[in-house]
Amino acid sequence: MIPRYARPEMTAIWSPETKFRIWYEIEAHACDAQADLGVIPRESAEAVWRAKDVEFDVARIDEIEAVTKHDVIAFLTHLAEHVGAEEARFVHQGMTSSDVLDTTLNVQLVRAADILLADMDRVLEALKRRAYEHKDTVRIGRSHGIHAEPTTMGLTFARFYAEMDRNRTRLEQARQEVATGAISGAVGTFANIDPAVEEHVCAKLGLRPEPISTQVIPRDRHAMFFATLGVIASSIENIAIEIRHMQRTEVLEAEEFFSPGQKGSSAMPHKRNPVLTENLTGLARLVRMAVVPAMENVALWHERDISHSSVERGIAPDATITLDFALNRLAGVIEKLVVYPENMLKNMNKFKGLIMSQRVLLALTQAGVSREDAYRLVQRNAMKVWEQGADFREELLADPEVTRALSPAVIEEQFDLGYHTKHVDTIFRRVFEDGRT
Amino acid sequence: MIPRYARPEMTAIWSPETKFRIWYEIEAHACDAQADLGVIPRESAEAVWRAKDVEFDVARIDEIEAVTKHDVIAFLTHLAEHVGAEEARFVHQGMTSSDVLDTTLNVQLVRAADILLADMDRVLEALKRRAYEHKDTVRIGRSHGIHAEPTTMGLTFARFYAEMDRNRTRLEQARQEVATGAISGAVGTFANIDPAVEEHVCAKLGLRPEPISTQVIPRDRHAMFFATLGVIASSIENIAIEIRHMQRTEVLEAEEFFSPGQKGSSAMPHKRNPVLTENLTGLARLVRMAVVPAMENVALWHERDISHSSVERGIAPDATITLDFALNRLAGVIEKLVVYPENMLKNMNKFKGLIMSQRVLLALTQAGVSREDAYRLVQRNAMKVWEQGADFREELLADPEVTRALSPAVIEEQFDLGYHTKHVDTIFRRVFEDGRT
Amino acid sequence: MIPRYARPEMTAIWSPETKFRIWYEIEAHACDAQADLGVIPRESAEAVWRAKDVEFDVARIDEIEAVTKHDVIAFLTHLAEHVGAEEARFVHQGMTSSDVLDTTLNVQLVRAADILLADMDRVLEALKRRAYEHKDTVRIGRSHGIHAEPTTMGLTFARFYAEMDRNRTRLEQARQEVATGAISGAVGTFANIDPAVEEHVCAKLGLRPEPISTQVIPRDRHAMFFATLGVIASSIENIAIEIRHMQRTEVLEAEEFFSPGQKGSSAMPHKRNPVLTENLTGLARLVRMAVVPAMENVALWHERDISHSSVERGIAPDATITLDFALNRLAGVIEKLVVYPENMLKNMNKFKGLIMSQRVLLALTQAGVSREDAYRLVQRNAMKVWEQGADFREELLADPEVTRALSPAVIEEQFDLGYHTKHVDTIFRRVFEDGRT
Amino acid sequence: MIPRYARPEMTAIWSPETKFRIWYEIEAHACDAQADLGVIPRESAEAVWRAKDVEFDVARIDEIEAVTKHDVIAFLTHLAEHVGAEEARFVHQGMTSSDVLDTTLNVQLVRAADILLADMDRVLEALKRRAYEHKDTVRIGRSHGIHAEPTTMGLTFARFYAEMDRNRTRLEQARQEVATGAISGAVGTFANIDPAVEEHVCAKLGLRPEPISTQVIPRDRHAMFFATLGVIASSIENIAIEIRHMQRTEVLEAEEFFSPGQKGSSAMPHKRNPVLTENLTGLARLVRMAVVPAMENVALWHERDISHSSVERGIAPDATITLDFALNRLAGVIEKLVVYPENMLKNMNKFKGLIMSQRVLLALTQAGVSREDAYRLVQRNAMKVWEQGADFREELLADPEVTRALSPAVIEEQFDLGYHTKHVDTIFRRVFEDGRT
Repeated sequence: MIPRYARPEMTAIWSPETKFRIWYEIEAHACDAQADLGVIPRESAEAVWRAKDVEFDVARIDEIEAVTKHDVIAFLTHLAEHVGAEEARFVHQGMTSSDVLDTTLNVQLVRAADILLADMDRVLEALKRRAYEHKDTVRIGRSHGIHAEPTTMGLTFARFYAEMDRNRTRLEQARQEVATGAISGAVGTFANIDPAVEEHVCAKLGLRPEPISTQVIPRDRHAMFFATLGVIASSIENIAIEIRHMQRTEVLEAEEFFSPGQKGSSAMPHKRNPVLTENLTGLARLVRMAVVPAMENVALWHERDISHSSVERGIAPDATITLDFALNRLAGVIEKLVVYPENMLKNMNKFKGLIMSQRVLLALTQAGVSREDAYRLVQRNAMKVWEQGADFREELLADPEVTRALSPAVIEEQFDLGYHTKHVDTIFRRVFEDGRT
Repeated sequence: MIPRYARPEMTAIWSPETKFRIWYEIEAHACDAQADLGVIPRESAEAVWRAKDVEFDVARIDEIEAVTKHDVIAFLTHLAEHVGAEEARFVHQGMTSSDVLDTTLNVQLVRAADILLADMDRVLEALKRRAYEHKDTVRIGRSHGIHAEPTTMGLTFARFYAEMDRNRTRLEQARQEVATGAISGAVGTFANIDPAVEEHVCAKLGLRPEPISTQVIPRDRHAMFFATLGVIASSIENIAIEIRHMQRTEVLEAEEFFSPGQKGSSAMPHKRNPVLTENLTGLARLVRMAVVPAMENVALWHERDISHSSVERGIAPDATITLDFALNRLAGVIEKLVVYPENMLKNMNKFKGLIMSQRVLLALTQAGVSREDAYRLVQRNAMKVWEQGADFREELLADPEVTRALSPAVIEEQFDLGYHTKHVDTIFRRVFEDGRT
Repeated sequence: MIPRYARPEMTAIWSPETKFRIWYEIEAHACDAQADLGVIPRESAEAVWRAKDVEFDVARIDEIEAVTKHDVIAFLTHLAEHVGAEEARFVHQGMTSSDVLDTTLNVQLVRAADILLADMDRVLEALKRRAYEHKDTVRIGRSHGIHAEPTTMGLTFARFYAEMDRNRTRLEQARQEVATGAISGAVGTFANIDPAVEEHVCAKLGLRPEPISTQVIPRDRHAMFFATLGVIASSIENIAIEIRHMQRTEVLEAEEFFSPGQKGSSAMPHKRNPVLTENLTGLARLVRMAVVPAMENVALWHERDISHSSVERGIAPDATITLDFALNRLAGVIEKLVVYPENMLKNMNKFKGLIMSQRVLLALTQAGVSREDAYRLVQRNAMKVWEQGADFREELLADPEVTRALSPAVIEEQFDLGYHTKHVDTIFRRVFEDGRT
Repeated sequence: MIPRYARPEMTAIWSPETKFRIWYEIEAHACDAQADLGVIPRESAEAVWRAKDVEFDVARIDEIEAVTKHDVIAFLTHLAEHVGAEEARFVHQGMTSSDVLDTTLNVQLVRAADILLADMDRVLEALKRRAYEHKDTVRIGRSHGIHAEPTTMGLTFARFYAEMDRNRTRLEQARQEVATGAISGAVGTFANIDPAVEEHVCAKLGLRPEPISTQVIPRDRHAMFFATLGVIASSIENIAIEIRHMQRTEVLEAEEFFSPGQKGSSAMPHKRNPVLTENLTGLARLVRMAVVPAMENVALWHERDISHSSVERGIAPDATITLDFALNRLAGVIEKLVVYPENMLKNMNKFKGLIMSQRVLLALTQAGVSREDAYRLVQRNAMKVWEQGADFREELLADPEVTRALSPAVIEEQFDLGYHTKHVDTIFRRVFEDGRT
């Protein structure tokens, strides 16, 4: 976890305090279920709940762990300090440490997913608002970094919206993947504990019982979870790269927001760096690097080995905290992105009308000119634009061989931007109204 | 693609013949739609369909491409050789090469997914059958590679079933992800072609229209697709590792099938190598290595750059062909796995009853013995087993301090395997009857 | 292996013919050594060499393998068909299949490295030539995609040269890593064969004997080899990205070579796509994806498991063939890159002199103006440039508060490009003369 | 950074205190060089050195950064608080933030490498000692997890030694890779600072001047550095997997050290888990995950973009701290590994002599028995061992058809372990005396 790329709410999920709180709830709910089954006295279960509002003392638990060399035992010992040794003796009965640890991890991942879903909503809202705002802001579409045909800035925002909306759906599925708990004992056979305990605890925690566990919850679930974060991160990179391109000096179609007083910006107005989106590019790599180790974690030996644990101590907080930060930074960038429609037009017209050469070529052939002749006509006028900076439309209008085939009105028509934007509404309807993403 | 790890049906999806066939169908359906719209003559559309049964000549297309340096134009030229130049002139009208290429890739991925789904069904069927067959075959459960508590071989198969069933669901979702097509022109604006064409072609090919594309279909879809293959591959590795462990000389609880006449097996009966599952371990890495580049492919410049293309030429056939092969090899391994229940018992009893020491400890404390005393009693008898090879149960029965607390019947009870298997039916019901995976 | 991204010489290294040829040489040299030791008759060794010019029949070997299910036995059987069964019976004596397979793999990797080293020489030569050609071609240096200070195109080429020269050194080290052979038997103890055989065979093949092997050569060597290819690929991406940026429509400081007759280029002169460097970006990902599986291959079970084998059947040919192709494509791109110095100047002057604002600021403070005042002076003139398109130098010369502090000559001096290029020779000397890279 | 997997010395390298200390040294040495050049007054340089023993106040610097939004300026402001504003005004003259930041990163990486090299020495020493200790401790060699031929535990340690020794050499090279510094200004042209400053600062810090930098030091160096850490991590995994296998219940040829009083170990003596080596398996994944993002960092835009920075804030401390911890944990595991030679013999003899079947087969054919007959003879005796638990040697000695071909002495000879260990000294000489690794 890199402090400067961390937000408090997500970070709190991974604090020892939160972890112990979830441990406590699992143990307390388990006691209720055990009391229902008559396995432990009802009073013991009730006694445990008396610690409900206790803030567990992390330092004290660490102190005990230094002696017992076992984190769950240390916690239970500390719990007994609050509940009373007698009442506490039935806590954890029939359970295995992993029952608590694995169920807790999934509670944390589910909560992390909920924050990430909210983050994505913020991103989606910003993208949608900016999409409608710039629905008709014409800019040049580019393939290979080269001008192709006109499109609109609204379509750019809309496609990022659609991509992020798909990611939201994926994240919901990933959340479902890890929304399971297991209280099934040392090798998953429920030898020492009734399945009813698992059912009860999971219901209370908003989880489904893991249908078949070993000592641990199967790690294909977590692999899928982190793989999904990796895809979302890649989409963040996609948006970030677009903005970085738009801000580069020669393009300048948009800029990350710069507060008016921000140092250096006015003495060197050309030197506003897209540092937020560059940062997002790097953060995407950090999130993505969790994917492969999460997949390597799937193949555990027999009913479990503990190789996955150190990996998850790293990637679970790191990937969720970084992604949470990145999504919020991204939302801020989109919300406040400064768009320069006039520069978009200027760029589009850099080679005065040349981007319409293909349309003119088509118009000529449709007017009956042979493909070879049409090509020759377009070429000779295009080269004047390219080499001498002439205006393509004017050249065409002045070329008698062209005007013999195409009337001035038809030539003008080829340069009509409305031709390119006529289906923008259709696409917006698909994305924002029909919800097809 | 490594020929020895390839099956013909999947390989065929990625052949030039298949590719050209799909190109043809896209073009022909597009002609129909264009004729419906009145953009091209009905007869031209009909003429194109006359090539329906033609087997396109790949060598001839390559020959033309060598001249035109453009694969789609080469194909169209060759198509004209079959359909007639006049009738062929309306083919591809208003379309961009990427419309054909990207839609084709997704058709191929969908077909690949269908084969993989069938593969998984075979794996699932085998796992289910073997799970029921060995539902009550007791073996020792292990954590950290160390004996823990008894479980059954049926539970092992059942958990692999549940894991693979989750993977099947994931693959269905991944198939949905890529089941889109786009015919939207150079920058995705439908400037030169009506969205109705896209709708028609996609309907005919079993795809959904991509709601908003640029020149290409967005690559977050493909990233998710390959990430899912990576998770499936990791589960294959998980099963493979289990079998490799079971077959190692000292364990020998199962073996990959060995045909009776297989050379070397009878002169060196101890030397049967789990080469198929070792191979699966390697194949899993090969599939998984597609995940990161597929994610790196998401961030394309503006409306497209072509960096993703070479990556997909590699990973699309390679990952699907390898996974198809691996799933089938896995199915065969499971179907024919030779299981040795007697060795399972022998292994479980390696340290004569010692795995029950924890249960005995619990029984003693429940019988009112203090924790310290219980520990001491178990320890002194356990050490006789560990150091002198004694039998734990017999030692306990002969220890008066133990028998003072526990009756012989209660001591015997601690060694009852039924205690550990009593919930196997519950778990099987969850997995196989309730379909909760 | 993707045929369109493969060159014949590298591909040939991975052909069955080459493989069998190396097998043959290993076996034949081993026979010599065994004869020297008196283990086998001299005549047998000599007989084997009679097959020296035989072209082994791959189809025939495959046919035998279909029966024997063992590739090395199939080869030896075929060899006996040439040499005579009697003479062939001493071939392979005391050896293990892996002795042949692993030594062969390393011979192939060494040969592949030699081709790659030659490829890099071609890249280096091109970079050096272009560096000197454009040593003094001034262009704007950019940080964050934003204009910073002037640099030269020669420095750009020179830094790619230095980077590639480091890569060449790394590749030489990687070649050394895998230049070992092992003929040490089933578990590496030389139980059945004298170490002298290994020494002799390795000497003949240009390898060092692996000092301690098991059944296989340790895979950390191969992990390092493929990691090095991954770094080289990343450097290719680095150069490719630079060129793609230079070619984008708004920048146009360079273009990949376009043959005059190339279709489409003259009717749409603006539409020349940097498809080669985009392709290189993708190829870099393909090479890089070999790195992680090669590292996962290191941890084999005990004296060997065969999980690494399928991985290497994929990545060894694929990564070397792709990198060989990429390096040659890159060399071609650099050799023929069309550089537009005039556009470099045009871009640099986009904001008429504004990139010098920092130097002017410094000059003012050095002339005794307070930091605040200097900032204010620069700012008010900069804003005129930024907002009204004025010329920065002219504005400064016309600002009496500025000219009070700086003489016109001093102001002019701030715009002197020589200030920025004065150490170019120093840097060139470091890189090209002192060979410090 | 995961606190439980971190050691103080390495962690300290990445503290803000260390970072500011290195910043200070760079600035102070640069002042000296500037004074030598006459660019700044000698007294100013001397004044800066008066802060030599100051402990910089991180909280105060953070406070200033909160206002200035620039870390280097914040530091310089704080430095001025110690040195005096007047004297401090020449600090950093002509430099760019990246000059300080990038040179500092490399100083940190070099120091990290030095710690890692010392760590490796500890590992190497332990491996060497254990290798000699168990040079002649015979155990079964295994391929595919299946018994093959005898080897010795000393050879196992020796091959890990050789592998780690190669890694040490690689790490030295990786250290060299990043042992460069750059003080070359905004785009690397030395426009505002003389190359002599770079030379001086680098000499003082034990670095080489980066021969050609842009705003930053090229990232191929760092990619190679982290790739090397990834290979080392993979070797750690390799050793860890071996030990985990040796400790599994059915094998029990070695155990991680268990302190006598360690809870639970004596009541359940069979339940000692190889948790340290399992943990190392996971830590290896954590280190390895830095490799791909480090490679993705190489392709920066033009003279720099800042995407690499966030990645390095994560992976630079994390990978070095984790690897340092892992190497030390590994050293401890090796130093104290409890080896069970008697269990090794017991395992080797599990199938009473069967592992010698291949040698017997060979002896028979060498004695003139036809291959088919030899096979049949071995087979019929082997099956008695396999199926009825007979002793292979005894069966052979009792088989008249066998004894007709081989004398009892010759039969006994086939079971001589010395046959397998006769070249152990040769191998040890290669590794430990000739230093060929």
